[in-house]
This record gives sequence, structure tokens and C-alpha cells, in this order.
Amino acid sequence: MNWVYIEDIGDFNGQDVEVRGWVHNKRSSGKVRFLVLRDGTGLLQATAFSADKDSPLFTKFDELTHESSVVVRGRVREDKRAPGGFELSIESIETIQIARDYPITPKEHSTPFLMEHRHLWLRSSKQHAVLRVRAEVVKSVRDFFDGRGFRLMDTPILTPSACEGTTTLFETEYFDQKAYLTQSGQLYNEATAMAFGKVYCFGPTFRAERSKTRRHLIEFWMVEPEVAFAELSDVIGLGEDLVLFVLERVLSKRKLELETLERDLRPLERIAKPFPRLTYDQALPMLREKGSKIEWGSDFGAPEETLISEIYPTPVCVTRFPTAIKAFYMQPAPDNPDVVLGVDFLASEGYGEIIGGGQRIHDPDLLERRIREHGLPREAYEWYLDLRKYGSVPHSGFGMGIERVVSWICGIKHIRETIPFPRLLYRIYP
Amino acid sequence: MNWVYIEDIGDFNGQDVEVRGWVHNKRSSGKVRFLVLRDGTGLLQATAFSADKDSPLFTKFDELTHESSVVVRGRVREDKRAPGGFELSIESIETIQIARDYPITPKEHSTPFLMEHRHLWLRSSKQHAVLRVRAEVVKSVRDFFDGRGFRLMDTPILTPSACEGTTTLFETEYFDQKAYLTQSGQLYNEATAMAFGKVYCFGPTFRAERSKTRRHLIEFWMVEPEVAFAELSDVIGLGEDLVLFVLERVLSKRKLELETLERDLRPLERIAKPFPRLTYDQALPMLREKGSKIEWGSDFGAPEETLISEIYPTPVCVTRFPTAIKAFYMQPAPDNPDVVLGVDFLASEGYGEIIGGGQRIHDPDLLERRIREHGLPREAYEWYLDLRKYGSVPHSGFGMGIERVVSWICGIKHIRETIPFPRLLYRIYP
Repeated sequence: MNWVYIEDIGDFNGQDVEVRGWVHNKRSSGKVRFLVLRDGTGLLQATAFSADKDSPLFTKFDELTHESSVVVRGRVREDKRAPGGFELSIESIETIQIARDYPITPKEHSTPFLMEHRHLWLRSSKQHAVLRVRAEVVKSVRDFFDGRGFRLMDTPILTPSACEGTTTLFETEYFDQKAYLTQSGQLYNEATAMAFGKVYCFGPTFRAERSKTRRHLIEFWMVEPEVAFAELSDVIGLGEDLVLFVLERVLSKRKLELETLERDLRPLERIAKPFPRLTYDQALPMLREKGSKIEWGSDFGAPEETLISEIYPTPVCVTRFPTAIKAFYMQPAPDNPDVVLGVDFLASEGYGEIIGGGQRIHDPDLLERRIREHGLPREAYEWYLDLRKYGSVPHSGFGMGIERVVSWICGIKHIRETIPFPRLLYRIYP
Repeated sequence: MNWVYIEDIGDFNGQDVEVRGWVHNKRSSGKVRFLVLRDGTGLLQATAFSADKDSPLFTKFDELTHESSVVVRGRVREDKRAPGGFELSIESIETIQIARDYPITPKEHSTPFLMEHRHLWLRSSKQHAVLRVRAEVVKSVRDFFDGRGFRLMDTPILTPSACEGTTTLFETEYFDQKAYLTQSGQLYNEATAMAFGKVYCFGPTFRAERSKTRRHLIEFWMVEPEVAFAELSDVIGLGEDLVLFVLERVLSKRKLELETLERDLRPLERIAKPFPRLTYDQALPMLREKGSKIEWGSDFGAPEETLISEIYPTPVCVTRFPTAIKAFYMQPAPDNPDVVLGVDFLASEGYGEIIGGGQRIHDPDLLERRIREHGLPREAYEWYLDLRKYGSVPHSGFGMGIERVVSWICGIKHIRETIPFPRLLYRIYP
């Protein structure tokens, strides 16, 4: 008999098949037993009929508990009333294992309890939906860049030096020296962009931040494109297209999952380009009007990001931040070196920054001066300076945090549910 | 004027375009100057004519050096003699930067020198070709699993415990505790497979091995599928299909790159399924006949892997290795508990292991005993044991090392060229 997955069950109408999975739910009604099976690809209602309540099939059925593993054989029948449109008429049940006292029950559990049982919590409908959206976001991001001729260049995780400050780095012994877990693949992307024109990296990045917020993970995935000869406006356009591509893909392919999550789709469906552009200087009075006390020269925090996103129904691109609060490699504006040609994309509905990037310094002398001013070890950046010596060109790029995007699209408040096994302050189990 | 990439130049025949890139080569011949440009997507010959050798255009041309950055404008002309079939008639050259003393010259350089200049070495034709093949391998792997309904589940890099022994782990401080860089996402995959049926993870993994071989990287990328209810033979079939899918994709889409690498394609084109299956017990006498001194109970080393691959023209699947040399989670054979239901795929032409995997123990008591026998800390595996308590099912999976596959397909002897910035024993720069 054919082993089939529930998501493909419609192709087997009228046929005898085998479904392998777990008991999601069950109930009885007179001479009928209903079993809701899950096999990881969907849910399927299976039914058994008998005039004899002590029939061997019913005895087997009655022993089954939540999350018991089973192989169920029977015939597929179209049934418009059934969720998914198909049902299975049970012929036989083979019990693989009876699960005793499955810890996650329909009652409310505390977050620490659920996090401690993350390996099982993943089986529940909501987590299932979020992670299917995540997989779709990842796939759409890769399709977007592959489709536009960007070359994937996996950048290293173990690096000899810091990209953005040293206070939030994980350190490890690398044989006879020290190494750090990467916070961004950008510097390496700049080298590969000079070799391949347009590139992206997409991998895990790490920040050992001692902050406990609902927007931060210690370990998170980031996609980072970098384009030789591109200027700030080029990558703002690229980011806009990327966000819209991902949104459209998820809205068309993961609608069921978003419904499971009770996500209000209207704010997402409304989003179109162009996203509003706002300079830091333009944003400041708008923030103060909404009650913020922010002074020129301070970075936006979560409250400022939220305030701005309340003004616009779409993501907003904020540019020209003060040079002093941004990374050493950022290109100063030609008309005002106190601000840089950088951009932050703030998601709508208060979800905060999803993209950060901009144009990089391509002048060798200026870059060397910045490295000195920031007190960075020159020898570690020798190779990075080489990129400005041998055919330097203007170039730009950005990073998009995957979990932030998933969190925004799913409409969930805490980022910890957007990755299978979140790494949080003090939490590394399971 | 339109900025176009060289790979798209054929769409602009007869039009005026702008190409942005670097000087790959140049030569003069009487009243003609030839400039070979590279922009990361391809090479393009651009020509300038003048009766006057002191024309401003020729003066500009004559200043250009290898890897100088330029913007060249001109008209696209079809020309069957030109590499790629198109040429650019130069109208103007805008020099962005003259590169002085580019360190990589046509003469032979030592490997340490090239590794020290990896950020520039990436621009040369051979490295370019290898990394384009790599990008294609990665994409084909993802397409394969996405197309078969596998769900991508990114597993954590920072883990509280070791998967396969503790001697080759990178350790770091994780706030108030210790953490280790992952060597495999498998244990986590087993949890997500119980939630999603069929899953894969695909990310960087780490082995702090003090061995210097041409087959090992300290940091490498691995794709790992895991399937609930699958047995050993199922995942052997899956691995076979995966290898063939990747091979066919690269052979059809990256033939030019393989030609650049002077790869003999015939051994790859011959490969078809089924791959020969060989038990460890069957392999031993074959190895001894070829001169190996291997005794029952020893693992295969590189010499044994090479010997076997010399016997067959396709990859070989070796199964039923001694239990004692394999990981604690491997399912013993029902007819002989001294060997396990594991499999290694050895690539053809002596490239060694590309896939390792098998069936996992699903019996809770046996798994608990193994954890004890291997002296592993029980508390760290509590969640992993839970998977055997709550609806345990037979399940299997494997890991495929991306750099090994790229190395094999490209026909290059040392794995260090298969990743943009290789991490090797004592090498972490650039």
C-alpha cells in the first residue's frame, strides 16, 4: 500500500493508502470514531465505523493518546465537510508508540515552560504555521537574488576581527589565536562583490548583547546583498523590491498559515512602492511632535522606530543618520560629512528595523583615517584596505534580518517564535 | 545610457550601453586597441580605433593597468570571432581608479601567497569558476529538497552540548555558561522531523580538527535532511537522487565553468543510479586485495576511501559499519547489533566521503543505554530522549558536505578553493 503525505492526499481519491503520523485529536460519536492525524504536512480526519463498540479496531482506537505514533491504512474519500476536503475511511491502525503524559496540553502554559519544551512545542499549530512562513521567507529571498543574477557567496562565521564594535562578540580559541563569531558578512561581501559584481551572503550571525527585548535574538539569520558600482539610491530600490517580493510570495503561498495565526492581512496587502523616504533630519521634528525627547546625534531606539511606523502604512526608509553613531565604513554625504549615506528600513505596524545598509567608503585615504579614528587594529583590515587600492569603486549593500521579517509578516510580538531553537539571553537549551 | 551586465550584453545588440567593471587584459595592434573587461558576470572585449595614436581615448587606454576600475561606454556589436559573440565599440572610457602593482600576476604564485591574498585571488578565472559552481550546487540542493516538500528548519549554531565527541569542539562563553559551535544539526533535525515529517537544515558546521589534509575544512557547509518514518534504504535512495540532481544541474548550467577548470566531464556524465551498495564486511576483502592492511573494526581512512572509489565508476554506498566506531544514536542492525544501519557515500575518482548518515535509534531504552555507555551528560540529552517518549517513530537522515561535492564536481584536489574564505588549521586571515 502507498505511503502518502497528507498534503498530497487529494491525488489519491478513491484509493487505498497508508498515512504515517501522530494523533492530533480524537473523538467518538455512537458508532463512529474520528481520528485527526498529523504527519507534519497537514491534518487529516480519519473515521472508523462499527456496530460493535468492542470491535478490535475500536479497542485500538480507544488506547490512542495525543501524540501517539501510528500507521493508519484506509481509503481516501472526498468529503466537502472535512477540513482539507478529504477523509480517510480507516481499515486498520498500527500503533507504533503510545505517548504517555504528553507535556503540552490544551491548557495555557507559561512561556518558560514552552521554551523548555521547544522540541515538542514545534508540533503545535501556531508554531508550525510560523515556521512554515519562515521557510517561505527564506526561499523567496534566495529566489529573489538568484533570479536577479546575484551570486551566493558564503562568508565565514569564524573571523579574526570585529565588524561592528567588540563589546558584543562571542570569542573562541582558534588553535594558536583568538577568533570571533561573525556579526555580519559585509566586509567579506565587499571583496566578493569586486570579484562577482553582485553577490549575497545568507547565514547565521551573532550578537552577545545583554539586552532582553522582544526584538533581539543572540543568534539570527541575515541576508546581505552587496553591489559593486551601486549607490545608496540603488540599494534602497533593491531593498524595496526585495520586501515586496517576499511579501507577495508569502501572501500567495502561505495564506492558510497566516490565517492560522489570525494575522490581519489588510495592512500587508496595502503595501506598495515607493516606500516613503525620510532623512534623519526630517524625522526628528516628527518624533518630537509625537512626544519623543530625542536630540540630534542620538540613534533611534525601539520607541522612535515604533513612533515613525505609526505615521505611515508602509515601511519607511530613513536615510542620512549622523556619522558619529554609524559604523566606520559608511560613506559620508558629499554635501555634509556629518551624516552618512546609510539607510534603515522600518517595518510598518511598529515592528521596527528590518533592513540596515548603505554606501561604503571607497576612497582609500578616508577609509584608512576612519579605521584609525575608530581605534581598529590596522593589520586586521589590511585586506579590506586592499579593496580600495586595486580598482576601488563605489559600492553599496544592506542586511535584512530574517526573524524580524518573519515576526512582522506573521504579526507576532516576540521574535523568539520565528526560529526553531531560539538563542536568548541565558537560554541555550534545548 | 543603460548600465548593463556583460552576461546580458546579447540583449543590447546595436545599442549604446555602459559597462562598469575592471580591466582584465589589454593589447594594441596598430590603429586598434583591445580592452578585455570583467564585471563579475563575464568577460567582454571592447575595441577602440583611431588613426591618431595620441588621441585622447588612446591616452586614457594606455594608462590603464590590470584591475583598474572603469566605466566604458559604447555600442554593442555582434561578432562571431569575439569570446561570447559580442564586442563593444568604445566611445568613451571613464577611469574610476588606476590599480598600481596588483599583487597577483600571470606568473606562478605560492599557495600561502595566494591564500594571504584570497580577497583578490577570487577575481581570477579559475576561482571564479569554482565559486560559481559552488553557488549552483547550493541552489540545486535547496531546489531538490524544496521541490520534494522538505521544510527548511535552521538549526542552532550555538549548542549546549556536543553531538559527536568533544575533542574537536570550539567552545565559547555564553553569558553564564559554556556553549559549543555545532558539528551537525542532526539532533535538532530529529525534533523538527517529528513536527514537520520531512525537514532539512543547511548551514555552517565546525570541527576543530588538528589535521591538515586536502579534504578537511575547519568551517564547512552541510545540508542535512531528516525524514520521520524513513528507514536506511529510504535515505540511501534519497541521497542517490540528490547527488544525481545536483550533478545534472551543474552539468547543464555550469558547463562553461567546468571547461574553464579543464574538468574531464566524461566520468561525471557516466554516473547513473543505482549506485553500488557494499557492506563493510564485503568491502574489507576487496580492500585487502588492493593492499590495505585494514582489520575488522577500524574505520575507513582516506586511503581506503580512495581504493574503493577506484573500483567503481560511480559513487558507492557503504553500509553496516561496526557499531563501535559510529555515533551513539545509530540504529543497530536487527540481525547483528555489532553493525549499524548507517551509510557512507564515497564519491568516484577518489574524492572520498560526500554523504554520511543512516537510521537513528528510536527505542527509548536503547538510546538511554547508549548515552550512558558513551559517557554523555544525560541532562543535556533530556529533550532528545523526549523524542523517543512522545510518539517515537523510526527515522533516518544524512549529511552531505557541500565543499566535498564542489571539490569532486570541479575536479580540484584541495578543498580550500571551494569556499570563498576557507578556514584551515592556523589560517583565519583574511
